[in-house]
Amino acid sequence: MKVGDTEVLVKTFTPDDVGIFANLSEDRNPLHIDEAFARKTPFGRPIVHGMLVSSLFSAILGTKLPGKGTIYLRQEVNFRKPVFVGETVTATVEVAEMRSDKPICTLSTICRNSAGDIVVDGQAVVKFG
Amino acid sequence: MKVGDTEVLVKTFTPDDVGIFANLSEDRNPLHIDEAFARKTPFGRPIVHGMLVSSLFSAILGTKLPGKGTIYLRQEVNFRKPVFVGETVTATVEVAEMRSDKPICTLSTICRNSAGDIVVDGQAVVKFG
Repeated sequence: MKVGDTEVLVKTFTPDDVGIFANLSEDRNPLHIDEAFARKTPFGRPIVHGMLVSSLFSAILGTKLPGKGTIYLRQEVNFRKPVFVGETVTATVEVAEMRSDKPICTLSTICRNSAGDIVVDGQAVVKFG
Repeated sequence: MKVGDTEVLVKTFTPDDVGIFANLSEDRNPLHIDEAFARKTPFGRPIVHGMLVSSLFSAILGTKLPGKGTIYLRQEVNFRKPVFVGETVTATVEVAEMRSDKPICTLSTICRNSAGDIVVDGQAVVKFG
């Protein structure tokens, strides 16, 4: 693994996915699961929970880069734009910095919608085996 | 709403919850779902995904404080200690700072295990209606 290494994950969150996550997390904010409520907000329709979108970073970190057994130390996320339910997003994780003294690295974490706009960005710090 | 306002959510993530989240997020890091693998790590047994634990902050923000319709702008989380599958955790969100010019506030977000140790901490920034 070296600075610049990149991995990607593409995902579409369905209404079912969002409903399951609402129950799992107990985040039943109607903005995510109630179409009539969402219609009256500036978004106009239900949006995916930001933490569910961000979990794609965790998926890449834990299964691809660095991969299996990775230990998550820190994550920062900025929710830049809404991700609408049913929209396809692409999460990208790139190694930004590697410590020379310990097996710890910082990775940039960015998620874009199908128009190429950044919907979530931030960075992660992980320990790897 | 004012600085110091606090809300709490208590939750136990079962093996089923963690399995569902692994599929939903595609984070199938075996540390979370494979007991034999987890036994060989420093943790000794499966741990809950940090992003699933952190979703309790989103739940409080979106349903209790500030509540329904809240828009998530930013979240930082530090994963301080493992949360074992089946362990009960208490997430606490407290208003730390309110902007005077806009309906935007910063909240401290802390999650403790049943021994009272901090397992996740950080802060959130949200816009409220």
